[in-house]
Amino acid sequence: MSITKQAVIQAQLPAKLAPQDAAEAFAPSNIALCKYWGKRDAELNLPINNSLSVSLGHLGTRTRLESAPDGTDRVYLNGVEQAQDQPFAAKLLAFVELFRAGRALPVHVHTENNIPTAAGLASSASGFAALTLALDRWLQLGLAPEVLSAFARMGSGSACRSLFEGFVEWRDGIHDDGMDSHGVPIPARWPGLQIGLVKVATGEKAVGSRAGMQRTIETAHLYQSWPLQAAADLEKLHQAIASRDFALLGQTAEQNALSMHATMIASWPPLLYWQPESVAAMQRVWQLREAGLAVYFTMDAGPNLKLLFEVQDRPAVEAAFPGLEVVAPFGD
Amino acid sequence: MSITKQAVIQAQLPAKLAPQDAAEAFAPSNIALCKYWGKRDAELNLPINNSLSVSLGHLGTRTRLESAPDGTDRVYLNGVEQAQDQPFAAKLLAFVELFRAGRALPVHVHTENNIPTAAGLASSASGFAALTLALDRWLQLGLAPEVLSAFARMGSGSACRSLFEGFVEWRDGIHDDGMDSHGVPIPARWPGLQIGLVKVATGEKAVGSRAGMQRTIETAHLYQSWPLQAAADLEKLHQAIASRDFALLGQTAEQNALSMHATMIASWPPLLYWQPESVAAMQRVWQLREAGLAVYFTMDAGPNLKLLFEVQDRPAVEAAFPGLEVVAPFGD
Repeated sequence: MSITKQAVIQAQLPAKLAPQDAAEAFAPSNIALCKYWGKRDAELNLPINNSLSVSLGHLGTRTRLESAPDGTDRVYLNGVEQAQDQPFAAKLLAFVELFRAGRALPVHVHTENNIPTAAGLASSASGFAALTLALDRWLQLGLAPEVLSAFARMGSGSACRSLFEGFVEWRDGIHDDGMDSHGVPIPARWPGLQIGLVKVATGEKAVGSRAGMQRTIETAHLYQSWPLQAAADLEKLHQAIASRDFALLGQTAEQNALSMHATMIASWPPLLYWQPESVAAMQRVWQLREAGLAVYFTMDAGPNLKLLFEVQDRPAVEAAFPGLEVVAPFGD
Repeated sequence: MSITKQAVIQAQLPAKLAPQDAAEAFAPSNIALCKYWGKRDAELNLPINNSLSVSLGHLGTRTRLESAPDGTDRVYLNGVEQAQDQPFAAKLLAFVELFRAGRALPVHVHTENNIPTAAGLASSASGFAALTLALDRWLQLGLAPEVLSAFARMGSGSACRSLFEGFVEWRDGIHDDGMDSHGVPIPARWPGLQIGLVKVATGEKAVGSRAGMQRTIETAHLYQSWPLQAAADLEKLHQAIASRDFALLGQTAEQNALSMHATMIASWPPLLYWQPESVAAMQRVWQLREAGLAVYFTMDAGPNLKLLFEVQDRPAVEAAFPGLEVVAPFGD
């Protein structure tokens, strides 16, 4: 039996909480180049392998917390109040409760996502990161970013990487309470790096990431080698970032994503997030590379592709993928 | 440096060969339920893992050898003479030469395949098995089926399973000369077992199986767990065959095939034999299963699916896959 989330958080908090009238914070979305796939502790979201991501600049979530004037918890998403028996508000208030721990501190939560809805980007990472930052300010905790990153991880694993800008490594850590498992920013910028969001399909996934990870670990023998692949890829990504080697970055990210999907495909029942159009989009990327264009892709637990390329190749990539939504993590 | 094919074969042959005027033999095609994927010896086609297949009854290759009346080697495929600088005739005569070993024994080889051309079935397994059997008869060798199976393996790995009818296990063996790596028939019949051939695409593969295996072993970390998956699947298949448990047979074959494809997908450059239509066909199988129909699939290193079902479900499967080509390995 692992330590509970609430015990871990309360151990870092003062006995008496002093909320401000209001506080707000922003956190960016992030895309993993080396994926988080598999938990060693499901309660605390402690990962089996280190992962590495790039944050998406101004794309993400802004969250404002207000000490409730009406004495009642309320949750708003993009201005619309959310029912508290629905997952969005329920998960969010459950996370707030980890901090309040029974203390009577009613709150209004205003969440604004500016992530393009068609992007196939998860908003849970930026959402829990922004909420954690806002809680730190609202409750005047003044905690270190690493501590807040470890807290955000307990809301959604990949949220711990959204505490930081640019490239971020999430270290697996070894402590039982997980306080050494948090994002660590990598002090390197890569102006010109572009991410193109290829939308294949939207809508609810039949199997969520959490259940997908679990099924993979339990049924796919191939998963046993996944940590080896991830460790090798992490080292290559550090090298690629340090030497600004785009081919190495792209190859590593693409093989890592495909290896993660491979572990799902080898599960039972088979877990195939791809649609026929996903395969067609992959084939188009490979054809562009055959023709000499330096474009690679990564994919999360879903059917959409995220293209990786550099700014000088943007016109050629856009010509092959009309209507592509392009993000520049380090600005244009 | 491993032993050469020719040395292994010559060690089993008499010093003087006595060819008949003519001899012929038939060998069936086979479909693996636990796949052969990876070689421990590339010269002798010795596998990393045991595999298990079912032979396809009357579908296969008939080969006739004639002591050449004109003193010249000639090769005919379905009645048409083949150029000896092309792969088909070149590989076939190279295999004959392993037996002749420089002796002047010119031969005419007549090969007839009755495998449906649209089936996406390899003809190399039945081809080398039939050729090996015909050589045994033509040269009056009188060798045991296990010895001939080991010989056929050196022409094409999976050919060693085509020496036998019904279910066949190919044991990896431990000897350097590979003479203990051959097919072993499993004495069980399964009347009513049906295989449906779903043709997604025809034409040359961009990367052949031999090169594909090699790339997977060299670049995919996930391949390291493949022997574990194969060993577990082999045990389940034996159990399924012994207890006539169709769900276990189908699940095991499908997960095994998907795990093999997963190791390819995790390679670099990525090896994806699937077409968008392959994914659509898989999704259709999964929908049928959700609806209660006991249908599963297997796939070799190509885009086509081979459906597994029992005879009572044939009408329902054919309704979902119009124009399906159905094979009954044990007769109808």
